[in-house]
Amino acid sequence: MNSQKIKPQTLKGFRDFLPETASKRDWLIARLKTVFKKFGFDPLESPALEYAETLLGKYGDEADKLLYLFKDRGDRQVGLRYDQTVPLARIVSQYQNLPKPFKRYQIQPVWRAENTQKGRYREFLQCDIDIVGTKDILADFEVVDCVLTAFKSLGFKKITILLNDRANFFGINNCFINSLDKLPKIGEEKVIEELVKKGLEKDEAKKLIRQIKEKPETENIIQLTKLLEAKGYQKGVDFLYQPTLARGLDYYTGIIYEVVSKDYPVGSLGGGGRYDNLIKLFTNQDVPSVGFAFGFDRIVEAMEVLNLLPQQKTETKVLVTIFSKELIDQSLKITDLLRQNNINTEIYLDSSAKLEKQLKYADKKGIPYVIIIGPDELSSKKMILKEMKTGKQQIFDKLDSVISYVNQS
Amino acid sequence: MNSQKIKPQTLKGFRDFLPETASKRDWLIARLKTVFKKFGFDPLESPALEYAETLLGKYGDEADKLLYLFKDRGDRQVGLRYDQTVPLARIVSQYQNLPKPFKRYQIQPVWRAENTQKGRYREFLQCDIDIVGTKDILADFEVVDCVLTAFKSLGFKKITILLNDRANFFGINNCFINSLDKLPKIGEEKVIEELVKKGLEKDEAKKLIRQIKEKPETENIIQLTKLLEAKGYQKGVDFLYQPTLARGLDYYTGIIYEVVSKDYPVGSLGGGGRYDNLIKLFTNQDVPSVGFAFGFDRIVEAMEVLNLLPQQKTETKVLVTIFSKELIDQSLKITDLLRQNNINTEIYLDSSAKLEKQLKYADKKGIPYVIIIGPDELSSKKMILKEMKTGKQQIFDKLDSVISYVNQS
Repeated sequence: MNSQKIKPQTLKGFRDFLPETASKRDWLIARLKTVFKKFGFDPLESPALEYAETLLGKYGDEADKLLYLFKDRGDRQVGLRYDQTVPLARIVSQYQNLPKPFKRYQIQPVWRAENTQKGRYREFLQCDIDIVGTKDILADFEVVDCVLTAFKSLGFKKITILLNDRANFFGINNCFINSLDKLPKIGEEKVIEELVKKGLEKDEAKKLIRQIKEKPETENIIQLTKLLEAKGYQKGVDFLYQPTLARGLDYYTGIIYEVVSKDYPVGSLGGGGRYDNLIKLFTNQDVPSVGFAFGFDRIVEAMEVLNLLPQQKTETKVLVTIFSKELIDQSLKITDLLRQNNINTEIYLDSSAKLEKQLKYADKKGIPYVIIIGPDELSSKKMILKEMKTGKQQIFDKLDSVISYVNQS
Repeated sequence: MNSQKIKPQTLKGFRDFLPETASKRDWLIARLKTVFKKFGFDPLESPALEYAETLLGKYGDEADKLLYLFKDRGDRQVGLRYDQTVPLARIVSQYQNLPKPFKRYQIQPVWRAENTQKGRYREFLQCDIDIVGTKDILADFEVVDCVLTAFKSLGFKKITILLNDRANFFGINNCFINSLDKLPKIGEEKVIEELVKKGLEKDEAKKLIRQIKEKPETENIIQLTKLLEAKGYQKGVDFLYQPTLARGLDYYTGIIYEVVSKDYPVGSLGGGGRYDNLIKLFTNQDVPSVGFAFGFDRIVEAMEVLNLLPQQKTETKVLVTIFSKELIDQSLKITDLLRQNNINTEIYLDSSAKLEKQLKYADKKGIPYVIIIGPDELSSKKMILKEMKTGKQQIFDKLDSVISYVNQS
């Protein structure tokens, strides 16, 4: 082993998730999974590495530059997962025998060599639902319904899903579409500026903007609206037609959507749409598909601000202290019994530490309860339960009473 | 986008987890997490990529050759996570303010450029528990107790944890230790052959083997045994002193262990030990630590053979069919109500498909129940529930009855 000290550091754009944060993220993932399963989405996982040719040319030229590509030890050109949609397309083409429509959720990290900035990372969790193998508008509706239900289950109150149809942009150059997409964010004047820079005359730019803004709802949007209203969703509140919405990725072909919250108006909390031609790149079959990607980090941020995440610092409920080396057995026994009763319990793992140090540990880690058993308690068959937040100490003579007390809190 | 078809293929040594398998793995992870939390381990996550210097020189020379190393787009030399212990060491050194002892579990994939063979992959899930910052034998005991409890909670009956102390090998060359480790697997003669090839005289080799086999229990093993017996674990059954056990990794310093099952005797289901010097590579502090890594894939294999995994093919309980386009509303309503009652429910997402096709889908996907509502049922306010396994059809006039029927099964 090296004898020189190595500087402990995280790569720029990458994050360590320490217990408090990891717990919250885990809680959020569990919530989302419950909703996904309720809607009949099953889990799927794909490898972190794919052949480079699987990834290249799917996301657009700009995105290709953000792929982590390298040669592996077998001299294969490989790349790290960039999203979960292209791997899904690869899988659906590779395993021809999957039941169709194929519904799956997928929650895995992806890697993009982005310029780092606030809230943009090079490794982040993607959280997708997709329905593969049906053109039916019912599938688009199912995705929207699942998304709105998921946000509701997380505690969001003011969620709107913006809808558009990529058909509204047919015939318009991709680079203009990207500018039009910015209309609600940067306003008409700046978009005109951008379009002029991209080669349009000012009048043409104005005309293009007017054209897009006035696009009537397409037949797909009208049908989707009917289904959403039948389910009780309110137009203008729960969902909204927004003809300028474009979404960045090249592969969308039909209805697209983006989720925003009035309570946390800093951009989209996720988006998706219909991509009927992507899977054709791998197979000769027609495999129309639709899906949605939850912006996991943005959702965590929003829930943090809106106070929707559990506030505990640790999943441990009780710390059992060790009064002295002679009394270890007693502490071990109580620890064991609490665990058998499904209470997340620690015993302090240094039997020579003073009680004060053990209490400090509970405080620092955020463990809500501490049990103390000294010689007096042992001889009188009692134990002290200290509530860390208030400092309140109670004496119990039965462990059952401790268990019900802790469970009720 | 490319117009040429791309061959859909998974990289050698990498795996796609299709829904049935992904569900089982997820179930297993959830079980393990419950036990880890019960023992006061909190979650931790580290990035997939680390600076190469963080990884190199920690695992031994052979292992260094298995690292996935490459230059990123910022020309930094980086590497994919190889295990979770070195990242833990890096994190503990980087965040000086963590409560100590620091207990965490970590469940993430790691990557090793191994020669692929049956049951050996280049990407596999690691599932670790570690206790950082205490020399106390209580911590070693806590890890062993948690491991045995975890295997029990998964349904394993005959689990033994083999114990040894790396102190037994002090003064013996690393390359000899690796051969001695193989004694229970390949037998004494083959080990002698190996040792001779590595430069020992035959007599020296024999002597070394005898020496190791006769090593008495160290003080640490004796103390650990006492704690395990006090908890009710049986020596020779639940745990066993095995002086030839070495474990491969260079960083172990004290008690080491490996889990085997008599019901599935194809090697170890996990292992770990004490590593008191690893973290010192990053920091000047003394940070004695102990941990265990569950061999996730091996455990899945074993549970598959021992029939300990849930046998469902999908998490969906009910498929609501669509009899005809005119009756979509009714099917949507029932779907919605079932979901509201926490029943994982799908609606068939192609409203033009024949009933037969929809039933085939349920059968193929393994959905246990199908609901059929045709015009007769609608007019008489009834619905048919078909049990796919038996083909049995029942008529219900209340959704509540369907819900309790499905929930009871």
